[in-house]
Amino acid sequence: MTTKVILENHEIPRQWYNIVPDFARAPLPYLGPDGLPVRPEMMTPIFPMSLIEQEMSNQRWIDIPDPVLGALLRWRPSPLRRAEALEKFLGTPAKIFYKDESVSPPGSHKANTAVAQAYYNKIAGTKMLTTETGAGQWGSALSMACALFGLRCKVFMVRISFDQKPFRKVLMELWGGECVPSPSNATEVGRRFLEQYPDTPGSLGMAISEAVEAAVSDSSGNTKYSLGSVLNHVLLHQTIIGLEAKKQLAKIGIKNPHVVIGCAGGGSNFAGLAFPFMKEKMEGAQIDIIPVEPASCPSLTRGVFHYDHGDTGGMTPLMAMHTLGSTFIPEPIHAGGLRYHGMSPLVSHSVVEGLATPCAIPQLECFDAAVTWARTEGYVVAPETSHAIAATIREAKKAKEEGKEKVILFNLSGHGFMDLAGYAKYFNGELKNYDLPQEEIEKAKETLARFPTAKV
Amino acid sequence: MTTKVILENHEIPRQWYNIVPDFARAPLPYLGPDGLPVRPEMMTPIFPMSLIEQEMSNQRWIDIPDPVLGALLRWRPSPLRRAEALEKFLGTPAKIFYKDESVSPPGSHKANTAVAQAYYNKIAGTKMLTTETGAGQWGSALSMACALFGLRCKVFMVRISFDQKPFRKVLMELWGGECVPSPSNATEVGRRFLEQYPDTPGSLGMAISEAVEAAVSDSSGNTKYSLGSVLNHVLLHQTIIGLEAKKQLAKIGIKNPHVVIGCAGGGSNFAGLAFPFMKEKMEGAQIDIIPVEPASCPSLTRGVFHYDHGDTGGMTPLMAMHTLGSTFIPEPIHAGGLRYHGMSPLVSHSVVEGLATPCAIPQLECFDAAVTWARTEGYVVAPETSHAIAATIREAKKAKEEGKEKVILFNLSGHGFMDLAGYAKYFNGELKNYDLPQEEIEKAKETLARFPTAKV
Repeated sequence: MTTKVILENHEIPRQWYNIVPDFARAPLPYLGPDGLPVRPEMMTPIFPMSLIEQEMSNQRWIDIPDPVLGALLRWRPSPLRRAEALEKFLGTPAKIFYKDESVSPPGSHKANTAVAQAYYNKIAGTKMLTTETGAGQWGSALSMACALFGLRCKVFMVRISFDQKPFRKVLMELWGGECVPSPSNATEVGRRFLEQYPDTPGSLGMAISEAVEAAVSDSSGNTKYSLGSVLNHVLLHQTIIGLEAKKQLAKIGIKNPHVVIGCAGGGSNFAGLAFPFMKEKMEGAQIDIIPVEPASCPSLTRGVFHYDHGDTGGMTPLMAMHTLGSTFIPEPIHAGGLRYHGMSPLVSHSVVEGLATPCAIPQLECFDAAVTWARTEGYVVAPETSHAIAATIREAKKAKEEGKEKVILFNLSGHGFMDLAGYAKYFNGELKNYDLPQEEIEKAKETLARFPTAKV
Repeated sequence: MTTKVILENHEIPRQWYNIVPDFARAPLPYLGPDGLPVRPEMMTPIFPMSLIEQEMSNQRWIDIPDPVLGALLRWRPSPLRRAEALEKFLGTPAKIFYKDESVSPPGSHKANTAVAQAYYNKIAGTKMLTTETGAGQWGSALSMACALFGLRCKVFMVRISFDQKPFRKVLMELWGGECVPSPSNATEVGRRFLEQYPDTPGSLGMAISEAVEAAVSDSSGNTKYSLGSVLNHVLLHQTIIGLEAKKQLAKIGIKNPHVVIGCAGGGSNFAGLAFPFMKEKMEGAQIDIIPVEPASCPSLTRGVFHYDHGDTGGMTPLMAMHTLGSTFIPEPIHAGGLRYHGMSPLVSHSVVEGLATPCAIPQLECFDAAVTWARTEGYVVAPETSHAIAATIREAKKAKEEGKEKVILFNLSGHGFMDLAGYAKYFNGELKNYDLPQEEIEKAKETLARFPTAKV
C-alpha cells in the first residue's frame, strides 16, 4: 500500500522557524551605499515594516498570522509521500520521501511566501506590488496572492522565460496580474540594459532592478516591492515546508532523514525544506543536506563567497553570498527559476558553516530524471524540481552501492504543466548541457573586487 | 479558518458503488448488430472479461483491488474544501463545498478509472491500450496509468483539441503514450471520415470509432480498447469521488447536501460525484442533482432519449441514451471534454427516472465563472469544470434570493494549466456563445429513426 502521510488542518505549524539565532557564527549584515550595515528604516521605501522586522529578526520562532494561515490552509499541510515505484525501479534500499509543494493553486512552493507578503502589505496599506519572475512560478504565485488579498500586481518576467512560456502571462492575467518581459522600456534601468545588451535573454538580476525601480519611483508610496526568494523573510515563510515534513516523518517513526535535498536558485525552496533539519544537525544529528543547482549557473559550487548586489543594476544592498557576479547572465536553460547569479545569504552562510554540501547537475541528467519520475511516480515536475530528483537518484544509487537503507527526503517544488515546451525540446534532442568556462568565474572575481570581501 | 476535510489513507473507500440494482426500473440493455441484447462474449475483442463483468454487473458494491487502491492512494482521498471566499464574494447564505479531483498526476478525475482499467488489462495479458481523447484529459490519464502498469498506449485525439492544446501530446509522450490527431489516416474509418468531412474539427464520436478499430484490428489479441467515460464500468470507478465526499461531509455533520452539481460530457465525472447521493435520494433524501452541459452540445436538455451508437462510425453497440445523433459534430468550444453527441446510458436513465435535472450553460458565462473562481478561491480550472462552477454560482445566487442556507456540493473535475490558450482567447474577446439551431435537433431525430426507440 502506498505510503503517504497527511496532516489535519489543526496540525499545521503555527510559527515559522528563523534559523539566524541558531547559527554558531552570525551571518554578515547587508551593507548600504555608505558601506555601513543597512538600518531598518532604509528599507521602508520597498517593504512594509513588518517584513523588514522579519528580515532582521533574531527571534527563533515567529507567529503565523491567522489570515495567512487561512490562506495557506487552502492547500496546506501538503502531502508527504514515499516514492516506492522509483525505489523499486532503481533497486535501491533507500527510502525516498518527498514533500509535494505542487499542490498550491499556482503549482509551486512560491505560494507560501506570496500569501504572507500580500497579507503584510495589505495591512500596511499597500495598494500594488511589483516583482520579478524567472520561470514565472513566482509571478504567478504573487498574482494569485494579490487577488486573494485585494492588491494590484505588476510582474517583470525574464525575457527568455517570457518567450519560452507564453501561457505564464495568461495565468498571471487570470489572477488579475500584469506581466511584462524584462528588460523592458518601462523603467530607466530597463532601458539602460536594453541599450547595453540589446539581444539579452534577460536575467533575474535585471528583472529585480526593474521591479525595485518601479516600486520606489511611485511617489504615492502605495507601491511596494516583493521578492520571491533570496531574502531572510522569504526563506522564513518557506520553513513551514520542513516543519510539516518533520511532523509527518515523526508520525511514521522517523526522527531525521539521512539526506535532505532541494533545488536552489535563490535558495528559498531549498531552505524551506532544509532549515528545520539544519537545526537538528546543529544539535548533533547526522544529516547530509544538499542544495542542487544547475551546472550552467553554479553559484554555490563554483562562485565566490563575497559581498555583491542582489540585482544587475546595483539597486539592492550589498549582501554576503555565493555569487557569479551580478552582471553574469546564465545560459538560457529551461529551469528559469534557477538562473540567478547569486544565492540567499542565509543559504550561503549555511554552506560556509559546513551545514550544507551543494552539488551542480547538468540539464540533460535533470530532464532524464524527470522523465523517469513521471513514468514511475506519475507526477510531472518543473525543470527546477528535476534538479532535486536527479540528485535524489544519485543518492539512491549511492545507497545501493553502499548497501545502506538511507532515508532520503526531497522537495518537489513545483509541477511541470507549464513547462512542456522544454520537455518537447528534450524529446526532440534540441537541448544540451552548458559548461560554465572557468574564465567566467575569474571575470566574476575581478568585478567583485570593487566590493568588500566577506569574512564571517 | 479555511474549512477543508481530509481523509486518512485508511479511510479510502474499499468498494465502488454500482447504481444499477438500485434503480426502480432497470436500465435498457445495449443492443448488438442483430438487434438483440449484447452478450458478454461479444465484447471480448475490445475489453478484458473482468471489465465486461463490471459493465453488466447487478452487484451493488464491487471491491477495489489492492494494486488499484495502491495507485489511487498516490492522490486519494482527494480534498473536500469549502469555497468561503466565493460565498463571501457572492454574498450568499449558501455553503459551497467542492471535491478537488485536479490533484491527480494528470490533473483530473480521469485518473480514477485509468488506473483501474490499466490494472484489469494488465492482469488479463493486454500489452497495449487504444483510446480516444477530447480535451486530452483522458488520453493523459490513460498514458500515465499505462506507464504505472507497464502497458503501451495509443491515443486518438480530437483534431480541434489537438490543435488548440499542442502540449497535451507532449504530456502523453512524457508518460510514454503515442498521440495522433483524429480523424487520421491510421484507420479505415478515419480515412472514410476525412473523405466525407475533409475540414472536420473531429469529434469524440469519430475518435472512438478509430480507437475501437485500432484495437480490434490487431490480430494478436493483445491490444484492447479503453473508454474514458459513458460506459457503466467507467462510471463505477468514478463513484469513489462521491463516496469520499459523503464521508467527508459526515465528518462535519452534514448528512446530505441540498444540491449536487457536476459537468457532464460523457457523464462519468458527474456520475462519480452524484451516484452515491442519488442512492440517498432514492432512499428518500431531498437533493437537487444537476448535470451541467454546454449550451452548444445539449444532449440531456435538448437531445432525444433514443437508441444510438456511442461513436460516429457505428462500431459500438446501440445504447439507450440522450443523444444529438452520432453524426452530430459539436461547435469547437474550449471545453473539449464536453463535446460528445451522446450521454452515458446510466446518467440518461437517471434523468428519465427523474433523479437528476440537467441544465445547459453557454460558454461565456462559464469562462466568466472560472475567472471569478480563480480570483476568489485561487484555483485555475479546466473549461469543462467551469460549467459546474457556473451552475454553482447560479444556485448560490438562487439561495441568496430565497434566503436559504443551502449546502451546495460540486466536483472540481480538473485544473486548467493546459487550457490557458482558451483563457487567452476569452480575455481577448475572441470567444462566443453557440446556440444550437432547432433544425439540428430535428435532423438528429430523423437520423435516429433507423434505430429502435428507447422505452424504459
